[in-house]
Amino acid sequence: MFDNLDGLIEAFNNGHTRALARVISRMENDDSERYKIIENIYPRTGKAYVLGITGAPGAGKSSLIDKLLTFLREKGDTVGVIVVDPTSPFTGGALLGDRIRMEEHFQDSGIFIRSMGSRGNQGGLAKTTQDVVKAMDAFGFQWVIVETVGVGQTELDIMHVVDTNIVVLTPGAGDSIQMIKAGIMEIADIFVVNKCDLPGADKVAADIEMMQDLRYEQLKWRPPVVKMSAINVLGFTELLESIEKHHFFLKKAGLLDERRKKRAANETLDIVNYQLRRLVKQQAELPGKVNEILNKVALRQQDPYSAAVEILKNVILDSKFFV
Amino acid sequence: MFDNLDGLIEAFNNGHTRALARVISRMENDDSERYKIIENIYPRTGKAYVLGITGAPGAGKSSLIDKLLTFLREKGDTVGVIVVDPTSPFTGGALLGDRIRMEEHFQDSGIFIRSMGSRGNQGGLAKTTQDVVKAMDAFGFQWVIVETVGVGQTELDIMHVVDTNIVVLTPGAGDSIQMIKAGIMEIADIFVVNKCDLPGADKVAADIEMMQDLRYEQLKWRPPVVKMSAINVLGFTELLESIEKHHFFLKKAGLLDERRKKRAANETLDIVNYQLRRLVKQQAELPGKVNEILNKVALRQQDPYSAAVEILKNVILDSKFFV
Repeated sequence: MFDNLDGLIEAFNNGHTRALARVISRMENDDSERYKIIENIYPRTGKAYVLGITGAPGAGKSSLIDKLLTFLREKGDTVGVIVVDPTSPFTGGALLGDRIRMEEHFQDSGIFIRSMGSRGNQGGLAKTTQDVVKAMDAFGFQWVIVETVGVGQTELDIMHVVDTNIVVLTPGAGDSIQMIKAGIMEIADIFVVNKCDLPGADKVAADIEMMQDLRYEQLKWRPPVVKMSAINVLGFTELLESIEKHHFFLKKAGLLDERRKKRAANETLDIVNYQLRRLVKQQAELPGKVNEILNKVALRQQDPYSAAVEILKNVILDSKFFV
Repeated sequence: MFDNLDGLIEAFNNGHTRALARVISRMENDDSERYKIIENIYPRTGKAYVLGITGAPGAGKSSLIDKLLTFLREKGDTVGVIVVDPTSPFTGGALLGDRIRMEEHFQDSGIFIRSMGSRGNQGGLAKTTQDVVKAMDAFGFQWVIVETVGVGQTELDIMHVVDTNIVVLTPGAGDSIQMIKAGIMEIADIFVVNKCDLPGADKVAADIEMMQDLRYEQLKWRPPVVKMSAINVLGFTELLESIEKHHFFLKKAGLLDERRKKRAANETLDIVNYQLRRLVKQQAELPGKVNEILNKVALRQQDPYSAAVEILKNVILDSKFFV
């Protein structure tokens, strides 16, 4: 089934869920197939609303997503979910750890859940996740939810592709400090203080408000702080309202288009970069001019900065690499 | 003092410590000055031995470095120390947190200590650290010690520039798990289990040995596990021996040169990349061909992969950018 790529893309375009799963796997495994897939599906992207859910392990992201799924499905919307875990070597449809509750949604064709681990090239996880968002979007899901733990550059990169990013915190454990360190304050659109029945919840909420007083004075959107409790279903309605408000704010301020435009530009420039790197690396491994220059640098006969300019000048400009 | 760059470089070459401090600040603040500085000092690099000290906050890195400094100074060697903390906004000669003990060495002209924070561009900390290593090396320090917390890609990148990397762990706190997650196992040349008078130290040491049984079977160098205690000065001699053994191993196996060669190549390719990115970004912000292509991508009229190729073809190849 789906032995050739054209057939696969056709099945994808006809809405076969198994073709979506296969398309994602192919993109993960083969760069040249990925290019071809994206080229084909790209015109149909840009319709889904992308939600990010970011928080430490144990913050209650899974049950939050579980509730969102139930709510969105009840009103008839379809949802793609991407669970990103850079520390996991696993990828694919497999469930990760404690996401047992999500399992019930697996039977539902209006929902597609995919986990992304570190398989494939390290630097590429953020890029692959972006492309998986595109695949789910082009496939027709109205919502794409991206779950991340929110540590490290890879995850920050991923969070830049979402429309509304929800940062989930819990009382205690110095979460707020960690969050500042990780640069998460800057990318949050909504804060959830989860497990708000635990002691210290008010302190966390107050901390966030205080940090916002310091940071967000100039901004038009001040991320609301929603106190939630998974156990007694507190705060969920408020969260939904906050998402809607943020969406409305982005649209009204023209930011939804502006952000997506900027994102498209950044993504393209990232690919330019990645392609170039690949080309130069290929050349560096063969005998020839690039190799010669690099040897000179190793022998301290040339400094790396002037060598870089020379490589760009003499080798990259050789247009035969761009056929 | 040092108002023009040539005068500054001359003072640097004449061994004025204040010129070293100024050279580092200039490299941090101005890319074009950095290129000129590196071009000038690069031929004199490649002589220092670079030690990495990696471990979580509170693992005892500072007192370990303190001991190393005392030991190396007693035998007459000179040492540059770089303290990298990507989460700190501070940079410069300022002391970070608990490094009071290092302070006594500040009076010693055979020692130069510099802290590196996140000031300047985010993605650039690893690159700047590499260049500061070069400055200290060219300045004539026989040893350069780079201290990092060891989380995130930036720090992994930094650790790839050291000759011998010492990873410092402490009993408890799930250190070993964190270490595997962060990819630190792969870059350790020596393990130190610090605070070995605390309960659980043997367990940590055994965990490391077990993980090495799984991982390092094929390698010629098996990172030794040194148990240390800062309080009763246990294990320090063993650590020094391990460093010496590792240095000897690298030299004998031809790996010291091989690694440095590879490092020079990677660094040059990183700069190629960085330069190109800068060029394309400049173009993207002006009206013109790149801008046009990026707009098409935003409007879903062209996919980002084919756009990337087109940008490389049509714009980067325009050699006027490389004058």
